[in-house]
Amino acid sequence: MTPVDDDGDGTLVAGVDLGGTKIQTIVARGGDVLGQARASTPSDGPVAVAGAVVDSVHASLEAAGTHLQQLSAVGIGAPGRIRDGVISHSPNMPGMQDPFPMESTVSNGLGGVPVRLDNDVTVATLGEMHRGAGRAFSSFLSVFVGTGVGGGMVLDRSVWRGRGAAGEIGHMVVKPHGRRCGCGGRGHLEAYAGRASMQQKAERLVAAGEHTVLFDLMAKHGRDRMTSGIIERALEHGDAMTERLIARAVWALGLALSSSQSLLDVEAMIIGGGLAERFGQPFVDRIAAQMGTTLFHADDPPAVLPAALGDLSGAMGAAVLAGA
Amino acid sequence: MTPVDDDGDGTLVAGVDLGGTKIQTIVARGGDVLGQARASTPSDGPVAVAGAVVDSVHASLEAAGTHLQQLSAVGIGAPGRIRDGVISHSPNMPGMQDPFPMESTVSNGLGGVPVRLDNDVTVATLGEMHRGAGRAFSSFLSVFVGTGVGGGMVLDRSVWRGRGAAGEIGHMVVKPHGRRCGCGGRGHLEAYAGRASMQQKAERLVAAGEHTVLFDLMAKHGRDRMTSGIIERALEHGDAMTERLIARAVWALGLALSSSQSLLDVEAMIIGGGLAERFGQPFVDRIAAQMGTTLFHADDPPAVLPAALGDLSGAMGAAVLAGA
Repeated sequence: MTPVDDDGDGTLVAGVDLGGTKIQTIVARGGDVLGQARASTPSDGPVAVAGAVVDSVHASLEAAGTHLQQLSAVGIGAPGRIRDGVISHSPNMPGMQDPFPMESTVSNGLGGVPVRLDNDVTVATLGEMHRGAGRAFSSFLSVFVGTGVGGGMVLDRSVWRGRGAAGEIGHMVVKPHGRRCGCGGRGHLEAYAGRASMQQKAERLVAAGEHTVLFDLMAKHGRDRMTSGIIERALEHGDAMTERLIARAVWALGLALSSSQSLLDVEAMIIGGGLAERFGQPFVDRIAAQMGTTLFHADDPPAVLPAALGDLSGAMGAAVLAGA
Repeated sequence: MTPVDDDGDGTLVAGVDLGGTKIQTIVARGGDVLGQARASTPSDGPVAVAGAVVDSVHASLEAAGTHLQQLSAVGIGAPGRIRDGVISHSPNMPGMQDPFPMESTVSNGLGGVPVRLDNDVTVATLGEMHRGAGRAFSSFLSVFVGTGVGGGMVLDRSVWRGRGAAGEIGHMVVKPHGRRCGCGGRGHLEAYAGRASMQQKAERLVAAGEHTVLFDLMAKHGRDRMTSGIIERALEHGDAMTERLIARAVWALGLALSSSQSLLDVEAMIIGGGLAERFGQPFVDRIAAQMGTTLFHADDPPAVLPAALGDLSGAMGAAVLAGA
């Protein structure tokens, strides 16, 4: 399991990474993961999702050999806007574009255990700060490159949230009038480095007559989305289109990080998400090299390193949010 | 004089805005400016500059009807990198590319009065935070549009300095492979919105055969630089090139502010410097409108307003740095 430190205060907490397709839950004490559970996210509305979160907490407690009476708090990270325990504007969660009181609903379902809800990327950033690659730094920018691209900022060992929506590095403009982003904007980082946008670009290139093994691989492996595993296999096949898509993603990431660094001057950049998990340091090094070509203080670059918590970063961050 | 509040602790301080062409000094108690002095910056090296700063503090004290024995501290804002009272990498100050101990040299020249030195833009941001347009906000980004473009960040009522070089919004990339910046980079905000770059662009356009009244106006008014006053007169003449240069500057500022806001989600943007002082709210409104076209959370934009301290922002900020 992921290496963690052991400075927790001994209370037992649950951390829930609530995503559009799966719910990953851990039960932890300090940095120690005592049990975990994973379930699919129900697609029939927020009440069903809250119920599945409650069930997954119970399943994790059982896996840890303990029970609800021992649990002091639950943390949840979820995509979307979070204010006062209410989730809204969640792009991938059915029925959660409108406000839904996730915090109180889950707490009621768990007999009143305190629940803290925060944005999934903020929570993953908290995890990296306390239990992952950010432990050595007082300031860093985190970037999670997945279906979309999100980020977080740790300044003076605190997550900077702005008015509640800070860290949207995926929606920095890297190319004026450039590729259309999922949000409707143009030339955003996410339009080049998010896997959903990369897949759409590949579809447009194929429609224009270009060749790739990407969609054959997706069909062969039963995927309807261009996962990082599919991308890796395509690169192993020497697929030129995939290499071009990745090169463009690296270019966009380097540019956004360089502009961010001009503004923030942080000690480190921490890169997580599917592609970073799969390709690790070599991928991160390519981004760092690209960043270096446009960095203002090129003689004094920040450290650039992969996130350390991998697949459990969201759940571990949620456990930190709950007091682990 | 500039409206100021009156929450100072009663100690008498001097604030020095040390620029490449002039030294503006004030003597202040709290927010009240009691005396001021202005001198040209010597061009014969850092020791002469430090001497001129000492003289200007004396001249301000005299204008305020007081003397050195009453002075509790001096603040200085200067361009360049500042670390531990030492200035270096100062682009416009003769002999200050190499490190020079400005803080101790001025302090010795003033009989040991404590001196605090910081970056000019940081200091101007401090001024706006405590005595200017930033008083109502807990977080804002300041942008000073002058010969170059610099900025500062106030987060939770503290200036964020990063590792000492934060706030370089002028060196965010707004257009990949775009216009050459004074720093050597390409497509930086400063390459479109800094007056030095705007002048160079105008020179290239004239060399390519295009017409403008800009250089005639500079000759007529005895200017070797394209000041904001020259720009204003050219616009009054309906000069199409000047309008294009300004439109491009507004475009670049809007884009950089929109990307910055995606990252930071601050409450306000405060725009200062020569062009903002001269054109005020209408100029700032153009930038805000441009920003709005690419803002990620377009339904919840930050306030955008002109800096309030005008020409004295640097000196007032330096006085704040000294404890005013």
